[in-house]
Amino acid sequence: MNKLKIADRIFSSRLFTGTGKFNSARQMEEALIASGSELVTVALKRVDITNNDDDLLAHLNHPSINLLPNTSGVRTAKEAVYAAQLAREALQTNWIKLEIHPDPKYLMPDAIETLKAAEELVKEGFVVLPYIHADPVLCKRLEEKGVQAVMPLGSPIGSNKGLKTIDFLQIIIEQSNLPVIVDAGIGTPSHAAAAMEIGADAVLVNTAIAVAGDPVNMAKAFKLAVEAGRMAYEARLATSGQHAIASSPLTSFLDE
Amino acid sequence: MNKLKIADRIFSSRLFTGTGKFNSARQMEEALIASGSELVTVALKRVDITNNDDDLLAHLNHPSINLLPNTSGVRTAKEAVYAAQLAREALQTNWIKLEIHPDPKYLMPDAIETLKAAEELVKEGFVVLPYIHADPVLCKRLEEKGVQAVMPLGSPIGSNKGLKTIDFLQIIIEQSNLPVIVDAGIGTPSHAAAAMEIGADAVLVNTAIAVAGDPVNMAKAFKLAVEAGRMAYEARLATSGQHAIASSPLTSFLDE
Amino acid sequence: MNKLKIADRIFSSRLFTGTGKFNSARQMEEALIASGSELVTVALKRVDITNNDDDLLAHLNHPSINLLPNTSGVRTAKEAVYAAQLAREALQTNWIKLEIHPDPKYLMPDAIETLKAAEELVKEGFVVLPYIHADPVLCKRLEEKGVQAVMPLGSPIGSNKGLKTIDFLQIIIEQSNLPVIVDAGIGTPSHAAAAMEIGADAVLVNTAIAVAGDPVNMAKAFKLAVEAGRMAYEARLATSGQHAIASSPLTSFLDE
Amino acid sequence: MNKLKIADRIFSSRLFTGTGKFNSARQMEEALIASGSELVTVALKRVDITNNDDDLLAHLNHPSINLLPNTSGVRTAKEAVYAAQLAREALQTNWIKLEIHPDPKYLMPDAIETLKAAEELVKEGFVVLPYIHADPVLCKRLEEKGVQAVMPLGSPIGSNKGLKTIDFLQIIIEQSNLPVIVDAGIGTPSHAAAAMEIGADAVLVNTAIAVAGDPVNMAKAFKLAVEAGRMAYEARLATSGQHAIASSPLTSFLDE
Repeated sequence: MNKLKIADRIFSSRLFTGTGKFNSARQMEEALIASGSELVTVALKRVDITNNDDDLLAHLNHPSINLLPNTSGVRTAKEAVYAAQLAREALQTNWIKLEIHPDPKYLMPDAIETLKAAEELVKEGFVVLPYIHADPVLCKRLEEKGVQAVMPLGSPIGSNKGLKTIDFLQIIIEQSNLPVIVDAGIGTPSHAAAAMEIGADAVLVNTAIAVAGDPVNMAKAFKLAVEAGRMAYEARLATSGQHAIASSPLTSFLDE
Repeated sequence: MNKLKIADRIFSSRLFTGTGKFNSARQMEEALIASGSELVTVALKRVDITNNDDDLLAHLNHPSINLLPNTSGVRTAKEAVYAAQLAREALQTNWIKLEIHPDPKYLMPDAIETLKAAEELVKEGFVVLPYIHADPVLCKRLEEKGVQAVMPLGSPIGSNKGLKTIDFLQIIIEQSNLPVIVDAGIGTPSHAAAAMEIGADAVLVNTAIAVAGDPVNMAKAFKLAVEAGRMAYEARLATSGQHAIASSPLTSFLDE
Repeated sequence: MNKLKIADRIFSSRLFTGTGKFNSARQMEEALIASGSELVTVALKRVDITNNDDDLLAHLNHPSINLLPNTSGVRTAKEAVYAAQLAREALQTNWIKLEIHPDPKYLMPDAIETLKAAEELVKEGFVVLPYIHADPVLCKRLEEKGVQAVMPLGSPIGSNKGLKTIDFLQIIIEQSNLPVIVDAGIGTPSHAAAAMEIGADAVLVNTAIAVAGDPVNMAKAFKLAVEAGRMAYEARLATSGQHAIASSPLTSFLDE
Repeated sequence: MNKLKIADRIFSSRLFTGTGKFNSARQMEEALIASGSELVTVALKRVDITNNDDDLLAHLNHPSINLLPNTSGVRTAKEAVYAAQLAREALQTNWIKLEIHPDPKYLMPDAIETLKAAEELVKEGFVVLPYIHADPVLCKRLEEKGVQAVMPLGSPIGSNKGLKTIDFLQIIIEQSNLPVIVDAGIGTPSHAAAAMEIGADAVLVNTAIAVAGDPVNMAKAFKLAVEAGRMAYEARLATSGQHAIASSPLTSFLDE
């Protein structure tokens, strides 16, 4: 399978993961290792940035894991920029997952503030990966501003509803010159595989792994599913049709 | 992952495959090996049963591959029973995939004739795996007659439309005491994974592998997807919900 | 709109209704009148056939309403035939909705027993309308036996899930020489309209009207929706496509 | 049914229509009258604003029809404001459907430019109805700027794919203090009914009427469907469930 390049980094794994909702930091660590994920989001607000021995970070300290701090919890571009700066200092990375969702119920992203913050953060040297609605025009606007990937949602965060936005994701994938990472709503390995099959470059999964009955094995399941979906994309799926073409001539072999 | 038992055989792989529509017997062989499949359907009508050097069969001669002859092309119970008898003799197996579809356009299975043939074939000592509509009551009737698994369709054969019958498959899986193998309509690895996630015991895939751009890699993709779906089923998926539960408290950490 | 003919009766309304689950017989009567329905199912088991003043029947005594007794509650062909005979005597009609569902949880129809009962009832002079799975081959078998319409389900009875079987309904409609009445699962007027748009001849709605907040107005809503769907079918819908064809040339009128 | 108020106007009909793609102005006129629509969009670029006898406008000159000029074809906020000003002068109305779609293939709306133009147009005294992605946060931002309704898309313009964005439309309807008009993608009366059933205040339909086999009767079908959907919403639909609750006790009446 082709590798994925974002900014100057190469990823073998196209499954990105998150760190929320696990029962324990130890369980999280095991699941993330099992997932094979090389990019892991961390909510800045959940890290104790004044503490060198922060428990969460200690469990993410692996050579294969790159941290992707996110700005979850901010409501404006200004707050997002400040959060990104804090994250850069605390976590020693200029990568930032830009999330701005003023509504605490559905955590829907704010197009206007996200674009504004993206522009500012790119200027300040960040590698910006914005979480957004599956809005094809917004993706192009962000591309023009210099972000390094786009992260459109599949369905509302935490809903586990899968690729409800698939018609728009397909347009985004068709039009984008950047990696497209489907984020939010992926509730099952089959959802993740489906995203990869239509040509998404990666998926980000958190809730579905963290709240599974067995998060470690669920992480493995997602790992396989993402590989399956990517492999299918590269091997070129046939399109769906209306009716059967018989797999063999309906000969009258029995009537002879 | 748990192994699957059908009649007296144990399967490590839950991906069953077919042999139709490949470009060549050699390509088929490579793809089937790549799929890891241990049960492979063969249309009796496509085998030259008078020829010991039949090309198709020669390429299926592997220790891990069990043949599952099917009765594709027959239109009545009587024809099906006769075809099964021929198959048993020719292929030296008492396993039979019972397919009766009088309509050559959509190849939809015939419930009435299938039940009749199943009863007769069980009496004659066959291990019967009937291909049927996703009809929960019919599944119970077949179970009463002594078949060893049921093979409800996901969508019309060759349509690649996926699990259009999912609401009925779930009822079948809930009620069945037999292995449930989703057959027909599975067009992508994500479809296969989805079938496994709801608790299907196996899937049968043919067209989607055979007509892919690269059948060998598509076979691998299906292999991974089936494992992913089964693993997810065993690791217990969370259910889907309407809105987000924020993965971390939306604290005012930035306002401090 | 074209009228619908079943056996020797002509129907102006393509909305058939049921009588279960209403709060009161009076409310039922009002809703059925509002629906404009001319064919109304009655479960034989709910009628006190020894009582000339049965409350349910009294509220169905309207010139525009034809009764369609059903055999709901029976589990075998034999029981169904007996129930039909009782119904004919009690309700003075040789029309019968044939329902055989051995499973009390999902009320899924039994293909085998239904075909058997249909054959017998046709011989005895009944106008038989069988409730069945959306199984295209079974529809043809029933047609051969002389039933007067087929009633495939849209989704499980009472589930309000709509046309989950739409891919199979389309095949049935394409192949059937009989009226096709979509029964079970229609939960909203939009579901009813969708069934008519694909060419169903009528729909049967019960639960969705009876348990609505306001059953009388919900009945009116279904009446309009069925008319809308039929009208759209006759006016020939355009097919769906992937992208826009701009409704007018994107001229540079502003740049002049 | 409740009437709909937008700005200072009251509408009896909740079906808004467009004027593109009809075979002739006369056919358009007939279809619009049949639809009962009281608000009809006109692309400014299609009107000859220097000609008092413009053919299109002549066929829209009815007491029940209010014109809603749109800015279709513009690519920026600045162009949109200019187009709105031209439209106000030419058509003598301060209502404007704000459409900004820089991409000529899918005609996807531009969130950023739309918000900017909306703000300016509200200041200039326009009644602004913006066409947007089904983006809940953007809807709130537009509400804050003083628009009078929001017009989220159901699926790509002209695709006839229906309510692909339904999960997001439901959030928008839940959160909005403004009328929500579903625009784009409504290809069948059942789609229109479904939008109304979830609580949309109105729908805008153009392509599906204009390109139907019989546009006049298709317009009538949409009229009925919109009424059906609204009526169902007001009469309160039951929710969908997993399995049947038998409509009557499965008594053993036949076994007595």
